[in-house]
Amino acid sequence: MTGDGPGVTLAESGEFAVIDRLVAGRRQPPWVPLGPGDDAAVIACPDGRTVVSTDMLVEDRHFRLDWSSPHDVGRKAIAQNAADIEAMGGRATAFVVGFAAPGHTITAHAVDLADGMWHEADLMGAGIVGGDLVSGPQWVVSVTALGDLGGRTPVRRNGARPGDVVALIGDLGRSHAGYELWRNGIEQFDELRRRHLVPHPPYGQGEVAARTGATSMTDVSDGLLADLGHIASASEVSVDVSLDLLAADLDAVAAAGAVVNADVRQWVLGGGEDHALVATFPTDPPPGWRRIGRVLDHPGSQPRVTVDRVPWHGTAGWESFRVD
Amino acid sequence: MTGDGPGVTLAESGEFAVIDRLVAGRRQPPWVPLGPGDDAAVIACPDGRTVVSTDMLVEDRHFRLDWSSPHDVGRKAIAQNAADIEAMGGRATAFVVGFAAPGHTITAHAVDLADGMWHEADLMGAGIVGGDLVSGPQWVVSVTALGDLGGRTPVRRNGARPGDVVALIGDLGRSHAGYELWRNGIEQFDELRRRHLVPHPPYGQGEVAARTGATSMTDVSDGLLADLGHIASASEVSVDVSLDLLAADLDAVAAAGAVVNADVRQWVLGGGEDHALVATFPTDPPPGWRRIGRVLDHPGSQPRVTVDRVPWHGTAGWESFRVD
Repeated sequence: MTGDGPGVTLAESGEFAVIDRLVAGRRQPPWVPLGPGDDAAVIACPDGRTVVSTDMLVEDRHFRLDWSSPHDVGRKAIAQNAADIEAMGGRATAFVVGFAAPGHTITAHAVDLADGMWHEADLMGAGIVGGDLVSGPQWVVSVTALGDLGGRTPVRRNGARPGDVVALIGDLGRSHAGYELWRNGIEQFDELRRRHLVPHPPYGQGEVAARTGATSMTDVSDGLLADLGHIASASEVSVDVSLDLLAADLDAVAAAGAVVNADVRQWVLGGGEDHALVATFPTDPPPGWRRIGRVLDHPGSQPRVTVDRVPWHGTAGWESFRVD
Repeated sequence: MTGDGPGVTLAESGEFAVIDRLVAGRRQPPWVPLGPGDDAAVIACPDGRTVVSTDMLVEDRHFRLDWSSPHDVGRKAIAQNAADIEAMGGRATAFVVGFAAPGHTITAHAVDLADGMWHEADLMGAGIVGGDLVSGPQWVVSVTALGDLGGRTPVRRNGARPGDVVALIGDLGRSHAGYELWRNGIEQFDELRRRHLVPHPPYGQGEVAARTGATSMTDVSDGLLADLGHIASASEVSVDVSLDLLAADLDAVAAAGAVVNADVRQWVLGGGEDHALVATFPTDPPPGWRRIGRVLDHPGSQPRVTVDRVPWHGTAGWESFRVD
């Protein structure tokens, strides 16, 4: 066993030695009766259900190793999966991870990736309970999150009703701002550039929304208007967003927008990957949530999302395989 | 929406239309209160626990699209994950799938992959409850299996005791035989060549072993000797396998071995991916299981696996990143 000293690669270390290194010294939460090391792990599901979601990140498509450290990639992969569990009103309890990488990958970078995953999982008290390490031509990180609903009904996308308030917690536009800064080689705005590499979902607020009576919820992964479009379609309603109510987000990215000469409304309305939570409430939203719009009827027309009562003509958000 | 007619690609169809097509018309089992279409799915865990395991398959590393149809790849991906759940004494109830593919992938091939996954999942009554479809330079299929233990204690690798019988159900050496036939361009032995593309794990037998008092269990994914090595290490015992008791497997691949001039003992002892179940029992194994060896003490030396009481000098099994 050659360990993970400077320059040692996955091919030199070997699969089983690397796995031993990735797993060693991690402390599992109490609801994980059996963690890594056997054919499968065992997770407690106290209310007799589990919530499950999966996401795959491909090198040079979802992250770039010249922008992100492996630690950043690990944090992002866990964060975006945890946000999906939050968006159902649950809390992530455990993750399993598939990781493909070339044999010439530095073993210490794989360890850094795992450290980033554990760093992010620790933010919500979850464990990484299993995985698969395989050889492949480029990095692919596939994460599956399991979560607990605490006895609550899952908050789906299909429960929004005309008259509900649309409210949000977390940030919009930061990840997209950061992306444009990286892409243009701008070295200012550290915080925004960091946000593109590692989102900050508002952990715990999915549960808060569920307890407060949210009628629908999703996380902003594709872009605010696209994700509200999913709620509008599933709920057969329209949603109107007010730009005035997004002033805090527009202001936060205005200086960066000026530097790269961009319309920051597009970043805030169409930029994905910040993993804010957006939900609809029949009453006032819980503390910390910001009202950003209103659920409307859709008499006779397609369910749709408008901005200040008119259709938005920019991009609504991300779609895989889109050529643009 | 361009559908999935002849020649239409993922890039032409678009992510959301493809997902609609992959999900349409699938029937979820009763323990899936919420299937695909929201941020996460919800799965019932009747005994308050879930078993979870994940595996990743990379094109040209774990499968070749000139050998396997997309349907075969889907079946294999589900089968090998289900086998991990069986190996704990559980039954797979639900799967989530990450799928990366180039934009020029024919949409009908992605549908065929999903059909293969559903075909295999139907064999055990499980559902495919969610997934992620992303763009990437080659196919990567990442499957996570969830399973139910039915109130039983999971059967781990660490419970084998000296004097236990080692027993097996399912096949050995077929997948490796098929691989060598494909690799050498031999067009006979259809059944063996099929087995390399789609393994046949003995579904339901993990539960049978657990009910019969198996003290340890694993599935043969890396190779019999390698996988028994995991049991021997975890249990701090030695395991001795008798070649005479593997005669059925040796005979089944003997004719193929003669054609490619191979030592079929190596295929049976070191070939992986058949996903037989191997377990240890303090008493007679259950009906259908074959005795193949015995658990021994390891006085003063390393836990180890022997064949007819002597170390085996061939390859014990598969390891990712190994250069050989």
